Amino acid sequence: MEDKQKTTDQIMLDKMRESKIETMYDRYKAQQPQCGYGSLALCCRHCNYGPCNIDPFGPGPKRGICGADANTFAARHFLRMSAAGTACHSDHGRAVAHLLVATARGEAPGYRIKDVEKLKMIAECFDIKTKDREINEIAEEVGEMALMEFGKPYGTLLFLKRAPAARQKIWEKLGIASRAIDREVTESMHRTGMGGDQDYRNLTKQAMRVSLADGWGGSMIATELQDILFGTPKPVQGRANLGVLKKDYVNIVVHGHEPQLAEAIVMASTGPDIEKAVAAVGAKGIVIAGLCCTANELLVRHGIPMAGHMTMQEGAMATGVVEVMVVDIQCVMQALAETAKHFHTKLVTTLSKAKISGAEHVEFEDENALESAKKIILMAIGNYKNRDKKKVFIPDASEPNLIAGFSHETIKYMLGGRFRASYRPLNDNIINGRIRGVVGIAGCTSPKAGECTQSYVDLAKELIANNILVVATGCAAGQCASGGLMLPELKDQCGAGLKEVCEAVGIPPVLHSGACVDNSRILIACSEMAKEGGLGNDISDLPVAGACLEWMSEKAIAIGQFLVASGIYTVFGMNSPVAGAPDLQNLLTKELEEQVGARWDFQQDIKKIGKMLMDHIEMKREALGINVKKERKLYDMAERRALEQECKPAGHH
Amino acid sequence: MEDKQKTTDQIMLDKMRESKIETMYDRYKAQQPQCGYGSLALCCRHCNYGPCNIDPFGPGPKRGICGADANTFAARHFLRMSAAGTACHSDHGRAVAHLLVATARGEAPGYRIKDVEKLKMIAECFDIKTKDREINEIAEEVGEMALMEFGKPYGTLLFLKRAPAARQKIWEKLGIASRAIDREVTESMHRTGMGGDQDYRNLTKQAMRVSLADGWGGSMIATELQDILFGTPKPVQGRANLGVLKKDYVNIVVHGHEPQLAEAIVMASTGPDIEKAVAAVGAKGIVIAGLCCTANELLVRHGIPMAGHMTMQEGAMATGVVEVMVVDIQCVMQALAETAKHFHTKLVTTLSKAKISGAEHVEFEDENALESAKKIILMAIGNYKNRDKKKVFIPDASEPNLIAGFSHETIKYMLGGRFRASYRPLNDNIINGRIRGVVGIAGCTSPKAGECTQSYVDLAKELIANNILVVATGCAAGQCASGGLMLPELKDQCGAGLKEVCEAVGIPPVLHSGACVDNSRILIACSEMAKEGGLGNDISDLPVAGACLEWMSEKAIAIGQFLVASGIYTVFGMNSPVAGAPDLQNLLTKELEEQVGARWDFQQDIKKIGKMLMDHIEMKREALGINVKKERKLYDMAERRALEQECKPAGHH
Repeated sequence: MEDKQKTTDQIMLDKMRESKIETMYDRYKAQQPQCGYGSLALCCRHCNYGPCNIDPFGPGPKRGICGADANTFAARHFLRMSAAGTACHSDHGRAVAHLLVATARGEAPGYRIKDVEKLKMIAECFDIKTKDREINEIAEEVGEMALMEFGKPYGTLLFLKRAPAARQKIWEKLGIASRAIDREVTESMHRTGMGGDQDYRNLTKQAMRVSLADGWGGSMIATELQDILFGTPKPVQGRANLGVLKKDYVNIVVHGHEPQLAEAIVMASTGPDIEKAVAAVGAKGIVIAGLCCTANELLVRHGIPMAGHMTMQEGAMATGVVEVMVVDIQCVMQALAETAKHFHTKLVTTLSKAKISGAEHVEFEDENALESAKKIILMAIGNYKNRDKKKVFIPDASEPNLIAGFSHETIKYMLGGRFRASYRPLNDNIINGRIRGVVGIAGCTSPKAGECTQSYVDLAKELIANNILVVATGCAAGQCASGGLMLPELKDQCGAGLKEVCEAVGIPPVLHSGACVDNSRILIACSEMAKEGGLGNDISDLPVAGACLEWMSEKAIAIGQFLVASGIYTVFGMNSPVAGAPDLQNLLTKELEEQVGARWDFQQDIKKIGKMLMDHIEMKREALGINVKKERKLYDMAERRALEQECKPAGHH
Repeated sequence: MEDKQKTTDQIMLDKMRESKIETMYDRYKAQQPQCGYGSLALCCRHCNYGPCNIDPFGPGPKRGICGADANTFAARHFLRMSAAGTACHSDHGRAVAHLLVATARGEAPGYRIKDVEKLKMIAECFDIKTKDREINEIAEEVGEMALMEFGKPYGTLLFLKRAPAARQKIWEKLGIASRAIDREVTESMHRTGMGGDQDYRNLTKQAMRVSLADGWGGSMIATELQDILFGTPKPVQGRANLGVLKKDYVNIVVHGHEPQLAEAIVMASTGPDIEKAVAAVGAKGIVIAGLCCTANELLVRHGIPMAGHMTMQEGAMATGVVEVMVVDIQCVMQALAETAKHFHTKLVTTLSKAKISGAEHVEFEDENALESAKKIILMAIGNYKNRDKKKVFIPDASEPNLIAGFSHETIKYMLGGRFRASYRPLNDNIINGRIRGVVGIAGCTSPKAGECTQSYVDLAKELIANNILVVATGCAAGQCASGGLMLPELKDQCGAGLKEVCEAVGIPPVLHSGACVDNSRILIACSEMAKEGGLGNDISDLPVAGACLEWMSEKAIAIGQFLVASGIYTVFGMNSPVAGAPDLQNLLTKELEEQVGARWDFQQDIKKIGKMLMDHIEMKREALGINVKKERKLYDMAERRALEQECKPAGHH
């Protein structure tokens, strides 16, 4: 049957079309052709002399009214994207820090310190005494110090010291060691205002500084403090796909980014009163499933099933079995309020900083999280009876079992063996060539790349076939999870060397490391690899790379920029965000190499990205003098077609 | 002669056209027609699904790819503008706070505490002890506490307490009392990211919170700490116009916003070695002149002449007599680097956060400011010989003498009489109807409003003729200064009541209160008027209003929003920034009245704004029960034409 080969999201999309429910793909089509000036970063609306456009080809204007040129236009926009991305991850990190303080003070009922070891480790990073002190006392001080990282008037970020010494020197020399996180955001907004910084090289430096304040600042605070509060991810079984939603159950989908909401929902979903209420409406139980990065957070820590990634949010609702979709912040489409009108589903917002016109609002605060969570669960149970059974449609998906939960600590522990957690064995296996290198794949899913693509799955398959270990985060990880890539059995699709390692250690060749905010784990893993020795003495010496095929969020730009500024070659698919400014494009894709030992690449044809990553890794191996060449698995067209799994990408408009 | 009636900037513009030097007006023309989507705020580039546009009329899309509607598009953009504006003023305020600390520690040679009284007043605001303490010790603590206002993890801004109690209650009730300044900027960037806050009412609340962090936060810190360091403005004679530049002198134009640069240049411009160097090149001396808000800062504190406002920056350079144009931050057009190529002029940037491709850079830090200033002055002297005398053209302008320097303290002192500084007499004169009310005019100048307009001059004349006292800041003040409005003699153009007050007190009817960052003075003046009694008990009860006719900078939006959120009815000319989103437009121009007792108005025809402001003031007088009606001076077409002073506004394209 043809349907068997369709992905779940494609099946769901077809169904929605049949039911005449509008989707993002319809709206994407309606937006064609998209503005060329904006697409090329040749539009500026930073003041009311504008909007100004620059003509990339013809005899039209080459400067805005103020005289800003294409490089200034694009660099300003690039910096604002970096600042916005940093703001997203960091404001999330701030919320976690506040929660840690509240928890330590006993002002956040339900929450507690779960990973004391990590708490102590972070305390040491912050030069906080741990000996003979109460856990909560340490936690409060860690939380307070983390909060000061956002606003301290002097000095640079404390976590920058976790990078290799050589890297820190580069940052200092360039003047891009980040100061307080919020200050970098504010300064970025100041510099990009009309008549401010108008030197694209200087603007790009600030884009590095503000992005480093994301990766080594806000994101890292979010990740580490979440681990302290909710547990550091360990390998855990899970399931993914729309099939995790169950017909006879009350289904609650938790969507967004901050795990504090999801954790409270999970905590509040059990107990006799809830069971009784569920029984009273005739349901078999409650299913809690995650969407987007909330799904990643829940999956890597608790094995709670993932309904889908970013582009599947409307589809999840269109199963008709979702009683409540409860959301917090980031990547939650306003369209959901419209989709919900077709069903009994209630869309519930939870944070005063992120409301949606047409949604119900139940306010979540640290002090009342459990209470609010319970209210939402009861709302879902009460809504079960309103479900329209005729509209129920859950794709008969495989719901692949998978293993997730590969924090950098786990990787270190598993690859290092039982006696001493260390990156030594990973480094050794890279040096001896069993593993050629490591690629982190991160990022969003997008209709621009085609309809219900499997691009990350395809890339991951190509990489592991070539003995490259893959670490995935965010919606890229979500797609790989749904695509069945996170199974130890997948070792058979690996090249011989990687297969051997995966067998010996018992890991899948594609490791799920968490949400997009958890790219900070990749920074720490790379730092430790560099410090372990044998692979140079800086991150930029390592045979590693980063890739984001279908970038959408401004967060992706911040992530890309902090990976590059940390020494990691990074390739973005689809379109360059600075395409209309050749000098800036050249700076990002070439000149940065001289500054930070790494650079960006942009590649429209995402099928070419696998080779670019592998070439880069081999080049780094060559430079390290460890390049015993191995046979390369090159994909021919037939194999590529097979990879595409009958998915029909939408044509370019 | 026809030329006699032309304004200086028009004469200069004609000359530049003759010399085929490109100006902003040429680039403005080249940009026509400007993008309609962007102009209506129906464009979104906050993620890479986009650019998305919404069709305001036809059958095109009504939502972006994520489902965001017109209100979300416009409200997000409005909030980002507010955040960017706040970032500009506040990052400026931060620099002043750092300088105050450095000065107190003796680490900023040349600078010193000039206004000890204000220092103590601010210390009291901050609950800092002043008794029996060294000035520098107090100053250091004030500086450190000011720095914490940018990043403190808890609490709201200290200066909010300077508002009337009723106003503070409104802010608390609405949840818009600003927390740390940078946090509000970061949260604004977070909320406006894809999939974040998607409720235009909620977004607009945050626009109030972040803007209040400008007016009562960053801007107020900048103003107050600058007064401490450089002196609180007192009435001072000055001159304005391109005519302040002198043919036989070394001319240095200081352009931008932060007075610390300008103050250092002034300090370093005297002394025997400088005199000797000047003599050696055959010049008669050094002229230092300001441009844009730097000009305002220098004028109100020292009476240092003002070469012009925003739209005159290219013209100032085109006089051919500027040896160095030294700039810091904000509103400095990249075009200057191109204009400079026509002359011997050196364009010098001074801050690492604001470079310009093609300019020379001399880094300014607190520790080396005097040194760097001296370097720049010597650079200018050395460049004198390179002047091309054939290119010299200084319009034979009237260089009106004027009186500037009306800080809120001065207004209080002068209007209050010698025995007790108080707003009592001002309030009394408003109550008895001699003065109908007060209008603050602030803001930019723009080619969108026409060529070399005199719109602020016209408005101010209309207002004073109707017994309304005018307080001006920013480029609006710059235009009024050049237009000869800041003279006590101007009382003869006032209505009888205002004339009587101006005569008795000896002030001009248009008071120059400083740079755009100094709109915070207006907040304090209004607060004190409300507290003085007799005119209600909140700012929103006062017969006052704000107006910005030719807004350009994102700072203008932040200013408008903090004026409205503080209870001041504010009218912006030309185009509404949210025109494509009728619900949001309605919220800003109507609904906000219920929330904060004030609202925005947008009026394309800037000639109608005078009447709107007067109607508002009469309406407030009516509500206060003080409305003894006075004869109104209504302008007929002939008088309007006379006001326009033969200026030819550019047609709408």
